[in-house]
Amino acid sequence: MPEQPGQPERHPLHLREGDPYGPHNLPYGVFSTADEPDRRRIGVRYGNHVLDVHTAATALGSAHSDLLAHPHLGALLAAGRPVWRAVRADIRTWLGYPAIEPFLHPLADVTLHLPFAVADYVDFYASEHHATNVGRIFRPDGEPLTPNWKHLPIGYHGRAGTIVVSGTPVVRPSGQRRAPGEEVPSFGPSQRLDIEAEVGFVVGTPSALGERVPQSAFRDHVFGVCLVNDWSARDIQAWEYVPLGPFLGKSFATSVSAWITPLEALEAAFVAPPARDRELLPYLDDSELPPAALDIRITVTLNGHTVSEPPFSSMYWTAAQQLAHLTVNGASLRTGDLFASGTVSGPRPHERGSLLELTWSGRDPLELPDGKRTFLEDGDEVTMTAWAPGPGGAVVALGEVTGRIAPAAGQAVLRGR
Amino acid sequence: MPEQPGQPERHPLHLREGDPYGPHNLPYGVFSTADEPDRRRIGVRYGNHVLDVHTAATALGSAHSDLLAHPHLGALLAAGRPVWRAVRADIRTWLGYPAIEPFLHPLADVTLHLPFAVADYVDFYASEHHATNVGRIFRPDGEPLTPNWKHLPIGYHGRAGTIVVSGTPVVRPSGQRRAPGEEVPSFGPSQRLDIEAEVGFVVGTPSALGERVPQSAFRDHVFGVCLVNDWSARDIQAWEYVPLGPFLGKSFATSVSAWITPLEALEAAFVAPPARDRELLPYLDDSELPPAALDIRITVTLNGHTVSEPPFSSMYWTAAQQLAHLTVNGASLRTGDLFASGTVSGPRPHERGSLLELTWSGRDPLELPDGKRTFLEDGDEVTMTAWAPGPGGAVVALGEVTGRIAPAAGQAVLRGR
Repeated sequence: MPEQPGQPERHPLHLREGDPYGPHNLPYGVFSTADEPDRRRIGVRYGNHVLDVHTAATALGSAHSDLLAHPHLGALLAAGRPVWRAVRADIRTWLGYPAIEPFLHPLADVTLHLPFAVADYVDFYASEHHATNVGRIFRPDGEPLTPNWKHLPIGYHGRAGTIVVSGTPVVRPSGQRRAPGEEVPSFGPSQRLDIEAEVGFVVGTPSALGERVPQSAFRDHVFGVCLVNDWSARDIQAWEYVPLGPFLGKSFATSVSAWITPLEALEAAFVAPPARDRELLPYLDDSELPPAALDIRITVTLNGHTVSEPPFSSMYWTAAQQLAHLTVNGASLRTGDLFASGTVSGPRPHERGSLLELTWSGRDPLELPDGKRTFLEDGDEVTMTAWAPGPGGAVVALGEVTGRIAPAAGQAVLRGR
Repeated sequence: MPEQPGQPERHPLHLREGDPYGPHNLPYGVFSTADEPDRRRIGVRYGNHVLDVHTAATALGSAHSDLLAHPHLGALLAAGRPVWRAVRADIRTWLGYPAIEPFLHPLADVTLHLPFAVADYVDFYASEHHATNVGRIFRPDGEPLTPNWKHLPIGYHGRAGTIVVSGTPVVRPSGQRRAPGEEVPSFGPSQRLDIEAEVGFVVGTPSALGERVPQSAFRDHVFGVCLVNDWSARDIQAWEYVPLGPFLGKSFATSVSAWITPLEALEAAFVAPPARDRELLPYLDDSELPPAALDIRITVTLNGHTVSEPPFSSMYWTAAQQLAHLTVNGASLRTGDLFASGTVSGPRPHERGSLLELTWSGRDPLELPDGKRTFLEDGDEVTMTAWAPGPGGAVVALGEVTGRIAPAAGQAVLRGR
């Protein structure tokens, strides 16, 4: 193993005390190395190393080696929960063998890729605090929540083809936006480019068309969790979204973390959801089910400065409820479906998961060491990290999602020819 | 060739006079035969036969044989316009050879499948007559069109995973709907199940993230056209769609025709779009471009009775404008992206493309020979056919899209466990 510059020599099989990427975590990703840049392989993160799991499985023997032989997680995701458990148990066993060392690559030496082909992408709107803030900002004289909000988890489909892995630059989108007081829209780069801190759920096991997936089957269908930054151009969104919802204000890019944390690593993080104000229809009622909220603590930084700490446990709707709602009309699930929570905002001001809320639509700029900020400027870098309680007091880190804003594409007039 | 029962013997290479599936049409699909039900093959429709194009290409020699060796159209779609032209020219040549006869299967003997993997599905809202009718029905005291409607083609993402091929039964969806005058929603089968007659456009050539596709590049990216029935549960949709747009009211099924008609077959069908009332931003301006509307005449039948004849040429926004809008924020295209026009409704009452409009939200039931109809009943079968002008007075038929309503899935109470 080459030593990393500036770091003390450390055996890759020995983690530092309390490493949040220990054997209790083991998230999956896809990586390549500098000497074989086109060879994408499934990797599992272990401390500051990445285990090449197919090579390890081939060398050490595994009944599931074939599932790990792909340049993406698809076959593993489709294999179902018993196999997910078996493969995870295999990997934990291997990490006890010194013979595994040749299959560990320093994290700093690899390139990480989008780990699975996204089938359908659904984005929910499940934080009461977020929805209330947005309602107050956009409709100051009306009820902040729409009448349906507490009866169903509101969601919509997003663009799967523009989901990008953490680290991909995000080009500022251009589009139509109408300035306050103007009657007609103008065209240009978004001037209200925003973030949305979210948690995403990756579907493994598909379901048949016409079949409902009850909340109790959540763990059979959902493989794991990632962080999501649902970049949003608020000015484009505001002009386009009535009556059919967000479209170009969201579809230019959605960033996801490179690591998918298996639900099995989050056993200790399940907690009770907030009390519900309304009686729910039976398919959404979870009052007699095991706790299904997740105690994931997110930190959002802008150019290295913490701007928000959204608590995922405060979400009104759980992921299990979202899955039950998504399929209650008979819509089928495919391997690789991704559904995200919607912006995570807690009850306190410093827990808000978007700049729209943090700056109250630009009225209250953030005071950062390098200047004031309302919405994102070119060159700004946003990073979201998160952790959850693990077994026996351990910490489970979720893979970070980061992205830097690149200037809008050339402003050449496109006359459609 | 086995003779079909009850039909006069006819050589498959001889079409009847004016056959709308002649050598000027040649739509692509995917089929299997009864003796090899798991072997999906690319087929081209010729009269009432299906040409097994890969077997033909192998036997007769083609530089593009590999593209046709798949169980779907993906590789052909991705190959780009010069190859689409070359393959089409090859097929037209082969149809002049008697040696091709063994590769023709009677249409009645084959099973047709979804011909391509749908990447992202976008649905537009591009008929002024439809949007005006819907606005009048839902907001009788307000302006029927939202302020943005004439400035941009409104669209949203739908569920790609529930797009099904013509002939697939459509199970009546269940979901939340709130009855008029009620405060809380109830759960049950949709009572306002509707159709939407649309035309879909299939993307072949992808585009890069951050790259705009101008209207002038429409023909380089879009391979062909299909018919779409965007089944809609109006009661579910009405309760859920504010503020983020349609979701479960649409996501249970969207039917597409089994045949994709290449744009090359529609050269004679391009006509001028309707006059625009507003000056458009440059990327949407098509005043100096060749005519980009399509003269496609749709017929909608319900249990065999014609209920509507929507004229596609009446759409306010063209598919080229929709593509330019969809990518103006830098969103990338993938091979297999499908974007649909939105409900096609013409200016006259019998040209409306949804039951919502045809019955004015149920107020004016349709009088059919087998009874009155407001929305769809179990067992109803809806079929959409269409044709367009072809070269020299020929007729180009588009593949039909048909579906029958199956009763809602069992009403067992799903208590989430």
